[in-house]
Amino acid sequence: MIPDDDRGLLLGDGLFETLLAEDGELRDAEAHVERMIRGCAVLGLEPPDAAAALAMARDALADARLSYERAAVRLTLTAGSGRGLERPEGSTPRLLATASPAPAPAGPARLVTVSVRRNDTSPAARVKALSYLDNILARAEARAAGADEAVMLNTQGEIACAAAANLFWISDGWVYTPALECGVLDGIVRGKAIAAAVALGAEVFEDRCEPEVLYQADAVFLTSSLAGVREVSQLDGRALEPHALVQAISSRCR
Amino acid sequence: MIPDDDRGLLLGDGLFETLLAEDGELRDAEAHVERMIRGCAVLGLEPPDAAAALAMARDALADARLSYERAAVRLTLTAGSGRGLERPEGSTPRLLATASPAPAPAGPARLVTVSVRRNDTSPAARVKALSYLDNILARAEARAAGADEAVMLNTQGEIACAAAANLFWISDGWVYTPALECGVLDGIVRGKAIAAAVALGAEVFEDRCEPEVLYQADAVFLTSSLAGVREVSQLDGRALEPHALVQAISSRCR
Repeated sequence: MIPDDDRGLLLGDGLFETLLAEDGELRDAEAHVERMIRGCAVLGLEPPDAAAALAMARDALADARLSYERAAVRLTLTAGSGRGLERPEGSTPRLLATASPAPAPAGPARLVTVSVRRNDTSPAARVKALSYLDNILARAEARAAGADEAVMLNTQGEIACAAAANLFWISDGWVYTPALECGVLDGIVRGKAIAAAVALGAEVFEDRCEPEVLYQADAVFLTSSLAGVREVSQLDGRALEPHALVQAISSRCR
Repeated sequence: MIPDDDRGLLLGDGLFETLLAEDGELRDAEAHVERMIRGCAVLGLEPPDAAAALAMARDALADARLSYERAAVRLTLTAGSGRGLERPEGSTPRLLATASPAPAPAGPARLVTVSVRRNDTSPAARVKALSYLDNILARAEARAAGADEAVMLNTQGEIACAAAANLFWISDGWVYTPALECGVLDGIVRGKAIAAAVALGAEVFEDRCEPEVLYQADAVFLTSSLAGVREVSQLDGRALEPHALVQAISSRCR
């Protein structure tokens, strides 16, 4: 339970991380906590102690008795108690950890480009912020269109990301993903997928791209902590085939 | 206290209203509850019963023993319990009401145009959503620039609103405010100010406007439930004088 004057609840003022746990082991736990600490600098929040946050995540997993299932451990850091847009002087962030069963990995995703844009003008676009309603609405729009996930453009009309994943595509053997400056999260599996592609000898481009390039792509895939590398089988109604390089990147990200 | 799996806390998935109470009386209480119910339709949430929500707001005010002070009553409607972007089937929204002392009305505001844009591509821009971080960051940017409040443009570069207020300006005796389609909240005092200006014989235009028009304005003012009509004394470093029409509109909105 949390108090009803918590700024996370009242105003979406805070950050979160969702960590995958398999067989009782947290994946990339240090990287998640480091990203939360970097996010604190962006939002002007006092960062948590990394070791204490890791211990909370591990305790939440143990307490939930999910040690031998696929579990999602959620770290939530709110800006603490206080009303109004401006945080009270001396307010202290509040850190919570919970664990719940993680959904089984889904099959390939059908994507549709939605009207809700990623607000790349906001520092919140570069962190995993509690104010997640645009993403919820993007996903709902995709679901209403019969798809599984959304392709969100940014305010410039460039490709940004999915509602809850980073977006990649492959053209002529080269691997592309939107640059962080497009207003996308510095995804942990995004980083691993880039490293995997480079290790496999592929050229990787992080760039600003018009949405039309997706329609010429040989393959499209998503990355996220819970789903890892996820193939895309359809984009705006156009079918996409499985691609050997996506499968090779996926294997290296496990 | 609220449970740690509440979607308002986890994802900013929900709505709020802030009502001013003076001398134990809630201002525009029915209008606030009606706006929350309209917001539910936009976000796909089951709406609260209007009478029950009003009763909760009145009880929160009475319980806080603030009846003879200026108080702020906050109604918070979250999407209920549940993890993940997609709300669980049959989840029930959670309605909370709290009351706290309201700040005394501040003097005229100094505004500065900030880089954080209002995301008018999102349905969330038309409702009073819990995901408020862009507004928090816009206000923080304005404060860091030595101002009191932010002028936010939308993704098209048009004038939208302040971080926590609607924005008006006066040019040659005509009154202007951004159209709702610019991605601004349907403010309750915004509506009252438009009606007041019309009653005073002024022409009122709700339109899409480039930011340059603000620099030719004779006066600028803000409207919000807690501050009512608030004069603007400075915009991006340019001083603005008090204006008789702003004071006349303010008197009629009390």
